[in-house]
Amino acid sequence: MPKGQPDVIPDDGLTTRQRRNRPILAVHTGEMKGKSTSAFGMALRAWNQGWSVAVFQFVKSAKWRVGEESALRALGTVHEQTGEGGPVEWHKMGEGWSWTRKKGSEEDHAANAREGWAEIKRRVEAQQHDFYVLDEFSYPLHWGWVDTDDVVETLRNREGRQHVVITGRKAPPALMDAADLVVEMTKHKHPMDVGQKGQRGIEW
Amino acid sequence: MPKGQPDVIPDDGLTTRQRRNRPILAVHTGEMKGKSTSAFGMALRAWNQGWSVAVFQFVKSAKWRVGEESALRALGTVHEQTGEGGPVEWHKMGEGWSWTRKKGSEEDHAANAREGWAEIKRRVEAQQHDFYVLDEFSYPLHWGWVDTDDVVETLRNREGRQHVVITGRKAPPALMDAADLVVEMTKHKHPMDVGQKGQRGIEW
Repeated sequence: MPKGQPDVIPDDGLTTRQRRNRPILAVHTGEMKGKSTSAFGMALRAWNQGWSVAVFQFVKSAKWRVGEESALRALGTVHEQTGEGGPVEWHKMGEGWSWTRKKGSEEDHAANAREGWAEIKRRVEAQQHDFYVLDEFSYPLHWGWVDTDDVVETLRNREGRQHVVITGRKAPPALMDAADLVVEMTKHKHPMDVGQKGQRGIEW
Repeated sequence: MPKGQPDVIPDDGLTTRQRRNRPILAVHTGEMKGKSTSAFGMALRAWNQGWSVAVFQFVKSAKWRVGEESALRALGTVHEQTGEGGPVEWHKMGEGWSWTRKKGSEEDHAANAREGWAEIKRRVEAQQHDFYVLDEFSYPLHWGWVDTDDVVETLRNREGRQHVVITGRKAPPALMDAADLVVEMTKHKHPMDVGQKGQRGIEW
Protein backbone atom coordinates (compact mmCIF):
# COMPACT_ATOMS: atom_id res chain seq x y z
CA MET A 1 0.00 0.00 0.00
CA PRO A 2 1.53 3.40 -0.83
CA LYS A 3 1.39 5.46 2.35
CA GLY A 4 -0.33 8.49 0.89
CA GLN A 5 2.05 9.84 -1.72
CA PRO A 6 0.36 12.66 -3.65
CA ASP A 7 0.30 12.61 -7.44
CA VAL A 8 1.08 16.30 -7.78
CA ILE A 9 3.06 18.76 -5.69
CA PRO A 10 1.11 22.02 -5.88
CA ASP A 11 2.66 25.45 -6.21
CA ASP A 12 0.71 26.97 -3.31
CA GLY A 13 3.52 28.39 -1.18
CA LEU A 14 2.86 25.88 1.62
CA THR A 15 5.38 23.48 3.11
CA THR A 16 4.56 19.77 3.03
CA ARG A 17 3.89 19.92 6.75
CA GLN A 18 1.54 22.90 6.40
CA ARG A 19 -0.26 21.19 3.57
CA ARG A 20 -0.43 17.89 5.42
CA ASN A 21 -2.05 19.48 8.45
CA ARG A 22 -4.58 21.56 6.56
CA PRO A 23 -7.95 20.59 8.01
CA ILE A 24 -10.28 18.52 5.87
CA LEU A 25 -13.83 19.22 4.78
CA ALA A 26 -15.28 15.90 3.64
CA VAL A 27 -18.65 15.13 2.09
CA HIS A 28 -19.99 11.56 2.09
CA THR A 29 -22.81 11.29 -0.37
CA GLY A 30 -24.45 8.76 -2.70
CA GLU A 31 -27.25 6.25 -2.35
CA MET A 32 -25.70 3.75 0.05
CA LYS A 33 -25.81 3.56 3.81
CA GLY A 34 -22.04 3.64 4.42
CA LYS A 35 -22.00 7.45 4.46
CA SER A 36 -22.60 7.90 8.18
CA THR A 37 -20.91 4.65 9.12
CA SER A 38 -17.74 5.75 7.41
CA ALA A 39 -17.91 9.17 9.12
CA PHE A 40 -18.16 7.47 12.50
CA GLY A 41 -15.24 5.24 11.56
CA MET A 42 -13.23 8.42 10.90
CA ALA A 43 -14.32 9.66 14.34
CA LEU A 44 -12.53 6.63 15.85
CA ARG A 45 -9.25 7.87 14.41
CA ALA A 46 -9.95 11.40 15.64
CA TRP A 47 -10.75 10.08 19.12
CA ASN A 48 -7.50 8.13 19.11
CA GLN A 49 -5.60 11.38 18.42
CA GLY A 50 -7.09 12.87 21.56
CA TRP A 51 -9.19 15.26 19.49
CA SER A 52 -12.46 16.75 20.66
CA VAL A 53 -15.17 14.99 18.64
CA ALA A 54 -18.68 16.42 18.21
CA VAL A 55 -21.50 14.73 16.31
CA PHE A 56 -24.63 16.61 15.23
CA GLN A 57 -27.40 14.41 13.84
CA PHE A 58 -29.82 16.41 11.73
CA VAL A 59 -32.50 14.00 10.70
CA LYS A 60 -32.62 10.75 12.60
CA SER A 61 -35.40 10.63 15.12
CA ALA A 62 -34.62 10.37 18.81
CA LYS A 63 -35.88 6.79 18.80
CA TRP A 64 -33.38 5.74 16.17
CA ARG A 65 -30.50 5.32 18.58
CA VAL A 66 -27.65 4.01 16.49
CA GLY A 67 -25.01 1.68 17.85
CA GLU A 68 -22.33 4.15 16.83
CA GLU A 69 -23.73 6.62 19.33
CA SER A 70 -23.44 4.17 22.23
CA ALA A 71 -19.95 3.14 21.18
CA LEU A 72 -18.67 6.69 20.69
CA ARG A 73 -20.24 7.79 23.99
CA ALA A 74 -18.48 4.84 25.65
CA LEU A 75 -15.19 6.10 24.17
CA GLY A 76 -15.97 9.57 25.58
CA THR A 77 -16.37 7.94 28.99
CA VAL A 78 -13.05 6.12 28.53
CA HIS A 79 -11.48 9.53 27.92
CA GLU A 80 -13.07 11.02 31.06
CA GLN A 81 -11.98 8.11 33.21
CA THR A 82 -8.52 7.30 31.87
CA GLY A 83 -7.42 10.23 29.71
CA GLU A 84 -7.08 7.92 26.68
CA GLY A 85 -8.42 9.35 23.42
CA GLY A 86 -10.47 12.53 23.28
CA PRO A 87 -13.82 13.84 24.53
CA VAL A 88 -16.99 13.00 22.60
CA GLU A 89 -20.24 14.97 22.33
CA TRP A 90 -23.33 13.71 20.51
CA HIS A 91 -26.25 16.01 19.74
CA LYS A 92 -29.51 15.07 18.07
CA MET A 93 -32.08 17.29 16.46
CA GLY A 94 -34.76 14.62 16.71
CA GLU A 95 -35.17 14.95 20.46
CA GLY A 96 -34.48 18.70 20.60
CA TRP A 97 -30.87 19.87 20.62
CA SER A 98 -29.22 19.17 23.96
CA TRP A 99 -28.21 22.81 24.45
CA THR A 100 -31.80 24.01 24.18
CA ARG A 101 -33.67 21.06 25.68
CA LYS A 102 -36.62 22.41 23.70
CA LYS A 103 -38.81 19.56 22.51
CA GLY A 104 -39.12 19.75 18.73
CA SER A 105 -42.65 19.65 17.35
CA GLU A 106 -43.59 18.02 14.08
CA GLU A 107 -43.87 21.37 12.35
CA ASP A 108 -40.63 23.15 13.14
CA HIS A 109 -38.00 20.89 11.55
CA ALA A 110 -36.71 23.82 9.50
CA ALA A 111 -36.35 26.04 12.57
CA ASN A 112 -34.65 23.21 14.47
CA ALA A 113 -32.21 22.66 11.62
CA ARG A 114 -31.37 26.38 11.51
CA GLU A 115 -30.86 26.37 15.26
CA GLY A 116 -28.52 23.40 14.91
CA TRP A 117 -26.47 25.13 12.26
CA ALA A 118 -26.34 28.40 14.28
CA GLU A 119 -24.82 26.48 17.21
CA ILE A 120 -22.32 24.68 14.98
CA LYS A 121 -21.32 28.00 13.43
CA ARG A 122 -20.71 29.48 16.90
CA ARG A 123 -18.58 26.47 17.81
CA VAL A 124 -16.58 26.56 14.57
CA GLU A 125 -15.89 30.25 15.03
CA ALA A 126 -14.81 29.57 18.62
CA GLN A 127 -12.71 26.58 17.44
CA GLN A 128 -14.46 24.45 20.05
CA HIS A 129 -13.85 21.02 18.52
CA ASP A 130 -11.27 19.29 16.32
CA PHE A 131 -13.56 16.88 14.49
CA TYR A 132 -17.18 17.54 13.59
CA VAL A 133 -19.64 15.07 12.06
CA LEU A 134 -22.68 16.86 10.62
CA ASP A 135 -24.74 13.75 10.01
CA GLU A 136 -27.42 14.02 7.32
CA PHE A 137 -26.81 17.76 7.16
CA SER A 138 -27.13 17.62 3.37
CA TYR A 139 -30.93 17.40 3.65
CA PRO A 140 -31.62 20.74 5.43
CA LEU A 141 -29.28 22.30 2.86
CA HIS A 142 -30.99 20.59 -0.07
CA TRP A 143 -34.42 21.59 1.22
CA GLY A 144 -33.31 25.21 1.69
CA TRP A 145 -33.88 25.18 5.44
CA VAL A 146 -30.28 26.20 6.03
CA ASP A 147 -28.45 28.62 3.73
CA THR A 148 -25.77 26.72 1.80
CA ASP A 149 -23.78 29.91 1.08
CA ASP A 150 -23.52 30.64 4.79
CA VAL A 151 -22.34 27.09 5.47
CA VAL A 152 -19.77 27.16 2.67
CA GLU A 153 -18.44 30.58 3.72
CA THR A 154 -18.25 29.62 7.39
CA LEU A 155 -16.45 26.38 6.65
CA ARG A 156 -14.09 27.90 4.07
CA ASN A 157 -13.05 30.57 6.58
CA ARG A 158 -12.78 28.35 9.63
CA GLU A 159 -9.54 28.73 11.51
CA GLY A 160 -7.23 26.32 13.30
CA ARG A 161 -7.34 22.58 12.87
CA GLN A 162 -11.02 21.76 12.59
CA HIS A 163 -11.98 18.77 10.44
CA VAL A 164 -15.58 18.57 9.27
CA VAL A 165 -17.42 15.60 7.73
CA ILE A 166 -20.89 16.15 6.26
CA THR A 167 -23.03 13.16 5.29
CA GLY A 168 -26.22 12.61 3.34
CA ARG A 169 -27.67 12.33 -0.14
CA LYS A 170 -28.33 15.30 -2.39
CA ALA A 171 -25.43 17.39 -1.13
CA PRO A 172 -25.62 20.82 -2.86
CA PRO A 173 -23.03 21.36 -5.62
CA ALA A 174 -21.60 24.43 -3.86
CA LEU A 175 -20.83 22.28 -0.82
CA MET A 176 -19.17 19.60 -2.96
CA ASP A 177 -17.08 22.31 -4.65
CA ALA A 178 -15.91 23.57 -1.27
CA ALA A 179 -15.03 20.09 0.00
CA ASP A 180 -11.51 18.68 -0.04
CA LEU A 181 -12.81 15.14 -0.12
CA VAL A 182 -16.00 13.84 -1.69
CA VAL A 183 -16.80 10.16 -1.39
CA GLU A 184 -19.78 8.65 -3.11
CA MET A 185 -21.15 5.38 -1.79
CA THR A 186 -22.58 3.43 -4.70
CA LYS A 187 -24.99 0.56 -4.37
CA HIS A 188 -24.04 -2.60 -6.18
CA LYS A 189 -26.16 -5.04 -4.30
CA HIS A 190 -28.16 -4.70 -1.14
CA PRO A 191 -30.14 -7.30 0.82
CA MET A 192 -33.18 -5.01 0.84
CA ASP A 193 -33.38 -5.53 -2.92
CA VAL A 194 -34.14 -9.17 -2.29
CA GLY A 195 -36.62 -8.54 0.46
CA GLN A 196 -34.44 -8.58 3.56
CA LYS A 197 -35.43 -5.91 6.05
CA GLY A 198 -32.95 -3.90 8.08
CA GLN A 199 -31.63 -5.78 11.06
CA ARG A 200 -30.30 -4.98 14.49
CA GLY A 201 -26.53 -4.59 14.66
CA ILE A 202 -26.22 -4.23 10.90
CA GLU A 203 -28.49 -1.34 9.97
CA TRP A 204 -28.54 0.41 13.35
CA MET B 1 -36.14 8.26 6.18
CA PRO B 2 -37.84 4.96 5.38
CA LYS B 3 -36.82 2.53 8.11
CA GLY B 4 -35.65 -0.28 5.88
CA GLN B 5 -38.70 -1.35 3.92
CA PRO B 6 -37.72 -3.83 1.22
CA ASP B 7 -38.83 -3.26 -2.36
CA VAL B 8 -39.74 -6.88 -2.93
CA ILE B 9 -41.07 -9.64 -0.70
CA PRO B 10 -39.33 -12.78 -1.92
CA ASP B 11 -40.93 -16.18 -2.22
CA ASP B 12 -38.23 -18.02 -0.31
CA GLY B 13 -40.28 -19.78 2.36
CA LEU B 14 -38.76 -17.68 5.15
CA THR B 15 -40.66 -15.56 7.64
CA THR B 16 -39.84 -11.85 7.82
CA ARG B 17 -38.06 -12.48 11.10
CA GLN B 18 -36.00 -15.33 9.65
CA ARG B 19 -35.09 -13.22 6.66
CA ARG B 20 -34.29 -10.20 8.82
CA ASN B 21 -31.88 -12.15 10.97
CA ARG B 22 -30.07 -13.90 8.15
CA PRO B 23 -26.40 -13.07 8.61
CA ILE B 24 -24.80 -10.68 6.16
CA LEU B 25 -21.77 -11.18 3.94
CA ALA B 26 -20.67 -7.70 2.87
CA VAL B 27 -17.91 -6.66 0.47
CA HIS B 28 -16.58 -3.09 0.54
CA THR B 29 -14.64 -2.43 -2.60
CA GLY B 30 -13.74 0.42 -4.97
CA GLU B 31 -10.92 2.94 -5.18
CA MET B 32 -11.60 5.05 -2.10
CA LYS B 33 -10.36 4.76 1.43
CA GLY B 34 -13.75 4.51 3.15
CA LYS B 35 -13.84 0.72 2.69
CA SER B 36 -12.14 -0.21 5.96
CA THR B 37 -13.38 2.85 7.80
CA SER B 38 -16.93 1.91 7.02
CA ALA B 39 -16.35 -1.70 8.11
CA PHE B 40 -15.02 -0.48 11.45
CA GLY B 41 -18.05 1.82 11.76
CA MET B 42 -20.21 -1.30 11.33
CA ALA B 43 -18.16 -2.95 14.06
CA LEU B 44 -19.32 -0.19 16.44
CA ARG B 45 -22.90 -1.29 15.94
CA ALA B 46 -21.95 -4.94 16.39
CA TRP B 47 -20.09 -4.07 19.62
CA ASN B 48 -23.14 -2.21 20.86
CA GLN B 49 -25.23 -5.37 20.36
CA GLY B 50 -22.89 -7.24 22.66
CA TRP B 51 -21.57 -9.29 19.77
CA SER B 52 -18.15 -10.88 19.66
CA VAL B 53 -16.14 -8.80 17.15
CA ALA B 54 -12.96 -10.08 15.49
CA VAL B 55 -10.83 -8.11 13.04
CA PHE B 56 -8.22 -9.75 10.81
CA GLN B 57 -5.97 -7.33 8.95
CA PHE B 58 -4.35 -8.98 5.95
CA VAL B 59 -2.06 -6.41 4.47
CA LYS B 60 -1.30 -3.44 6.65
CA SER B 61 2.13 -3.58 8.17
CA ALA B 62 2.50 -3.83 11.92
CA LYS B 63 3.78 -0.26 12.00
CA TRP B 64 0.62 1.08 10.43
CA ARG B 65 -1.37 1.10 13.63
CA VAL B 66 -4.68 2.62 12.75
CA GLY B 67 -6.72 4.70 15.15
CA GLU B 68 -9.64 2.35 14.70
CA GLU B 69 -7.60 -0.40 16.31
CA SER B 70 -6.95 1.62 19.45
CA ALA B 71 -10.56 2.71 19.65
CA LEU B 72 -12.00 -0.77 19.12
CA ARG B 73 -9.53 -2.26 21.59
CA ALA B 74 -10.63 0.40 24.10
CA LEU B 75 -14.23 -0.73 23.54
CA GLY B 76 -13.14 -4.32 24.16
CA THR B 77 -11.67 -3.17 27.47
CA VAL B 78 -14.94 -1.38 28.31
CA HIS B 79 -16.68 -4.70 27.76
CA GLU B 80 -14.24 -6.56 30.02
CA GLN B 81 -14.57 -3.99 32.79
CA THR B 82 -18.25 -3.10 32.69
CA GLY B 83 -20.02 -5.72 30.60
CA GLU B 84 -21.22 -3.04 28.17
CA GLY B 85 -20.99 -3.98 24.48
CA GLY B 86 -19.13 -7.08 23.30
CA PRO B 87 -15.59 -8.48 23.28
CA VAL B 88 -13.15 -7.33 20.58
CA GLU B 89 -10.18 -9.17 19.07
CA TRP B 90 -7.77 -7.61 16.58
CA HIS B 91 -5.28 -9.72 14.66
CA LYS B 92 -2.66 -8.49 12.20
CA MET B 93 -0.78 -10.43 9.59
CA GLY B 94 1.91 -7.74 9.36
CA GLU B 95 3.43 -8.58 12.73
CA GLY B 96 2.76 -12.30 12.56
CA TRP B 97 -0.69 -13.55 13.53
CA SER B 98 -1.23 -13.35 17.28
CA TRP B 99 -2.11 -17.04 17.57
CA THR B 100 1.19 -18.14 16.05
CA ARG B 101 3.52 -15.36 17.27
CA LYS B 102 5.65 -16.37 14.30
CA LYS B 103 7.44 -13.35 12.89
CA GLY B 104 6.57 -13.04 9.19
CA SER B 105 9.48 -12.70 6.82
CA GLU B 106 9.40 -10.65 3.65
CA GLU B 107 9.08 -13.76 1.53
CA ASP B 108 6.19 -15.65 3.04
CA HIS B 109 3.28 -13.25 2.64
CA ALA B 110 1.33 -15.88 0.73
CA ALA B 111 1.87 -18.50 3.44
CA ASN B 112 0.90 -15.98 6.13
CA ALA B 113 -2.27 -15.11 4.27
CA ARG B 114 -3.18 -18.79 3.92
CA GLU B 115 -2.51 -19.29 7.62
CA GLY B 116 -4.79 -16.33 8.42
CA TRP B 117 -7.59 -17.75 6.32
CA ALA B 118 -7.15 -21.26 7.82
CA GLU B 119 -7.66 -19.78 11.30
CA ILE B 120 -10.69 -17.75 10.21
CA LYS B 121 -12.18 -20.86 8.63
CA ARG B 122 -11.71 -22.79 11.88
CA ARG B 123 -13.41 -19.98 13.80
CA VAL B 124 -16.30 -19.68 11.35
CA GLU B 125 -16.88 -23.44 11.50
CA ALA B 126 -16.80 -23.26 15.32
CA GLN B 127 -19.10 -20.16 15.26
CA GLN B 128 -16.59 -18.37 17.44
CA HIS B 129 -17.57 -14.77 16.64
CA ASP B 130 -20.66 -12.82 15.60
CA PHE B 131 -18.99 -10.15 13.49
CA TYR B 132 -15.83 -10.60 11.42
CA VAL B 133 -13.92 -7.91 9.57
CA LEU B 134 -11.50 -9.42 7.03
CA ASP B 135 -9.66 -6.22 6.24
CA GLU B 136 -7.94 -6.08 2.84
CA PHE B 137 -8.65 -9.76 2.38
CA SER B 138 -9.52 -9.10 -1.27
CA TYR B 139 -5.82 -8.86 -2.13
CA PRO B 140 -4.69 -12.37 -1.13
CA LEU B 141 -7.75 -13.63 -3.03
CA HIS B 142 -6.97 -11.52 -6.09
CA TRP B 143 -3.33 -12.62 -6.06
CA GLY B 144 -4.33 -16.27 -5.75
CA TRP B 145 -2.62 -16.75 -2.38
CA VAL B 146 -5.90 -17.92 -0.86
CA ASP B 147 -8.41 -20.04 -2.78
CA THR B 148 -11.51 -17.95 -3.51
CA ASP B 149 -13.68 -21.05 -4.02
CA ASP B 150 -12.81 -22.28 -0.53
CA VAL B 151 -13.65 -18.87 0.95
CA VAL B 152 -16.95 -18.63 -0.91
CA GLU B 153 -17.96 -22.17 0.02
CA THR B 154 -16.99 -21.72 3.67
CA LEU B 155 -18.86 -18.44 3.96
CA ARG B 156 -21.92 -19.66 2.04
CA ASN B 157 -22.21 -22.65 4.36
CA ARG B 158 -21.48 -20.87 7.62
CA GLU B 159 -23.98 -21.55 10.36
CA GLY B 160 -25.58 -19.47 13.07
CA ARG B 161 -25.55 -15.69 13.13
CA GLN B 162 -22.10 -14.78 11.84
CA HIS B 163 -21.78 -11.52 9.91
CA VAL B 164 -18.71 -11.08 7.72
CA VAL B 165 -17.37 -7.90 6.11
CA ILE B 166 -14.54 -8.18 3.58
CA THR B 167 -12.74 -5.04 2.41
CA GLY B 168 -10.28 -4.16 -0.35
CA ARG B 169 -9.97 -3.39 -4.03
CA LYS B 170 -10.10 -6.03 -6.75
CA ALA B 171 -12.52 -8.32 -4.93
CA PRO B 172 -12.94 -11.46 -7.08
CA PRO B 173 -16.26 -11.69 -8.97
CA ALA B 174 -17.15 -15.00 -7.28
CA LEU B 175 -16.91 -13.30 -3.89
CA MET B 176 -19.09 -10.39 -5.03
CA ASP B 177 -21.63 -12.90 -6.36
CA ALA B 178 -21.75 -14.63 -2.99
CA ALA B 179 -22.12 -11.36 -1.06
CA ASP B 180 -25.45 -10.04 0.18
CA LEU B 181 -24.15 -6.49 0.17
CA VAL B 182 -21.55 -4.93 -2.12
CA VAL B 183 -20.63 -1.29 -1.59
CA GLU B 184 -18.28 0.49 -3.91
CA MET B 185 -16.52 3.58 -2.66
CA THR B 186 -15.99 5.94 -5.57
CA LYS B 187 -13.55 8.79 -5.62
CA HIS B 188 -14.95 12.14 -6.61
CA LYS B 189 -12.31 14.36 -5.16
CA HIS B 190 -9.45 13.66 -2.85
CA PRO B 191 -6.90 15.99 -1.24
CA MET B 192 -4.05 13.78 -2.46
CA ASP B 193 -4.99 14.82 -5.98
CA VAL B 194 -3.99 18.37 -5.14
CA GLY B 195 -0.80 17.42 -3.38
CA GLN B 196 -1.95 16.99 0.21
CA LYS B 197 -0.29 14.01 1.88
CA GLY B 198 -2.09 11.70 4.26
CA GLN B 199 -2.38 13.14 7.75
CA ARG B 200 -2.60 11.84 11.27
CA GLY B 201 -6.15 11.40 12.54
CA ILE B 202 -7.61 11.50 9.05
CA GLU B 203 -5.80 8.81 7.09
CA TRP B 204 -4.73 6.62 10.00
